[in-house]
Amino acid sequence: MSRYDEFQAFRAELNEKILARGTTQTRRFFTLDTKTYEAGALDAKTKELLGLSASMVLRCDDCIAYHIDQAVKAGATDQELWETFDIALVVGGSIVIPHLRRAVAFLEACRARG
Amino acid sequence: MSRYDEFQAFRAELNEKILARGTTQTRRFFTLDTKTYEAGALDAKTKELLGLSASMVLRCDDCIAYHIDQAVKAGATDQELWETFDIALVVGGSIVIPHLRRAVAFLEACRARG
Amino acid sequence: MSRYDEFQAFRAELNEKILARGTTQTRRFFTLDTKTYEAGALDAKTKELLGLSASMVLRCDDCIAYHIDQAVKAGATDQELWETFDIALVVGGSIVIPHLRRAVAFLEACRARG
Amino acid sequence: MSRYDEFQAFRAELNEKILARGTTQTRRFFTLDTKTYEAGALDAKTKELLGLSASMVLRCDDCIAYHIDQAVKAGATDQELWETFDIALVVGGSIVIPHLRRAVAFLEACRARG
Amino acid sequence: MSRYDEFQAFRAELNEKILARGTTQTRRFFTLDTKTYEAGALDAKTKELLGLSASMVLRCDDCIAYHIDQAVKAGATDQELWETFDIALVVGGSIVIPHLRRAVAFLEACRARG
Amino acid sequence: MSRYDEFQAFRAELNEKILARGTTQTRRFFTLDTKTYEAGALDAKTKELLGLSASMVLRCDDCIAYHIDQAVKAGATDQELWETFDIALVVGGSIVIPHLRRAVAFLEACRARG
Repeated sequence: MSRYDEFQAFRAELNEKILARGTTQTRRFFTLDTKTYEAGALDAKTKELLGLSASMVLRCDDCIAYHIDQAVKAGATDQELWETFDIALVVGGSIVIPHLRRAVAFLEACRARG
Repeated sequence: MSRYDEFQAFRAELNEKILARGTTQTRRFFTLDTKTYEAGALDAKTKELLGLSASMVLRCDDCIAYHIDQAVKAGATDQELWETFDIALVVGGSIVIPHLRRAVAFLEACRARG
Repeated sequence: MSRYDEFQAFRAELNEKILARGTTQTRRFFTLDTKTYEAGALDAKTKELLGLSASMVLRCDDCIAYHIDQAVKAGATDQELWETFDIALVVGGSIVIPHLRRAVAFLEACRARG
Repeated sequence: MSRYDEFQAFRAELNEKILARGTTQTRRFFTLDTKTYEAGALDAKTKELLGLSASMVLRCDDCIAYHIDQAVKAGATDQELWETFDIALVVGGSIVIPHLRRAVAFLEACRARG
Repeated sequence: MSRYDEFQAFRAELNEKILARGTTQTRRFFTLDTKTYEAGALDAKTKELLGLSASMVLRCDDCIAYHIDQAVKAGATDQELWETFDIALVVGGSIVIPHLRRAVAFLEACRARG
Repeated sequence: MSRYDEFQAFRAELNEKILARGTTQTRRFFTLDTKTYEAGALDAKTKELLGLSASMVLRCDDCIAYHIDQAVKAGATDQELWETFDIALVVGGSIVIPHLRRAVAFLEACRARG
């Protein structure tokens, strides 16, 4: 299974378990999380890039992969993604670099799916 | 002096000292930081909002104030700022709330200057 | 105004502004946050201590103050609070110490109110 | 080897090396760490849950696994663990979710051992 | 009172309260913390600079002030301090800048005492 | 392939892609990062240890591995590395321990290469 498919499969399987076993509060948090990225005054692509810059400086590989995937689906170009990477890099510092490496590998996997 | 003017005055005074006393590396970092927010594939307003969401989840009040000020100057509406706040809140959690309170107070000071 | 009263007044004033100006998402986050600490399988005091240990290692003074206040109201003894401080200190390291100093000063203010 | 057994084996092997090669300070830190979770005014289960909420918001998978294992051994129920997860989720935000997924998978492995 | 004297006075007053009211564990942590910076294979000045770079990337103003003060007392030159600042800036990113501003102001206060 | 060789191969491959696909800003950040560790008032070994203590408290395994490798190449002894580990452990707390385990395993791999 590709890194892309593995990521999606583990995410889907565990989200299902979380929603089945968690409390009402857990489910409410997941609903709130989803709704926050719906288009409003800012369009969906911009919101995904905002989630991406936040995830990069907090250095969460799975969150970075998720927002890259969503941003790509919302039409983000490579140039827009790299400018977002640059902001995360300058705000978050060199500690972001290992996550940038994995982000670049994941973006390649996203684009390869066509 | 208002909170807004105090913030700007301390920032300006210390940046001057940093550029005067720091090394070549220090100055290069400051130049790089400034250039990262120049309009490219993403416009200046979007870049400031990306810097804002990153600063909010990293919980740096001065960085938040700086990017709110820049976003307002680049034409961001309150609705756009609140949608950015919402993303930072859901990504970063309730630990962001005290910084959101100070962000809201600072935004009010920005708007009051007309 | 005492540190305790200042903290409560700023918190109340800005929360009111946030709920008035924020989006539906912002208000939902605040509701979710409140409900998470209601007694369940774990009692309210234990939940406040869980919020306190999380806030201490994330080093958020206002969050620490809030959970100390709530834990005290839920009947936490000084010994229980210090054992929570110890866990936060060993998990989070010496970087927690300046926040522990302010926590101890705030706890003193809470107890002084009788 | 199961994820549970792998985790325990690597932990045991490296802890042994750390205690053999580290300095007196290193060993003192490890002793202090162990003693902090001994029952006092708060019982051992509550202390493990405090360590768990701190570990979740700091997003350390191995620390989360360790405290889940200890909490289970101290008698924590699934409901108590989920209420702790909820607090960590609301304090730490959606950035905690990937760690929650792995926590749920690890908890399942703990319970499967009987 | 100067920022330098205020910092030292609050620190001394609260440390005293912590050692008086804390548990045996609290006191052990403080002892361990102090001993870690004693000269060994690395001299005291280098150890303070290591504590400084760690404190800067974790963005704790009081910890930064403390290690600057200790490094100055151990003979650190301004050039050595600025090279440490540069490493913290590149590792930790622009989010470190507001703390660098306050570090520079504090270093000035340290040097002014002669 | 050994953990050491895997680490170096992935790092080299992705750095090449980053420099090829990134923007001028991305490349400037990488140049700045490299230059920051060149010997100045502080020698190269001390600078690597400063990068190591910063990386340990920020808990980035790849950054820790990189600075251990560079520090070893610059002549750091095991005792000097352990005293750096101790500072990171006391500043950053027990949350650093899982990273210390992997650091010790990586250091062993570095020394084994002779």
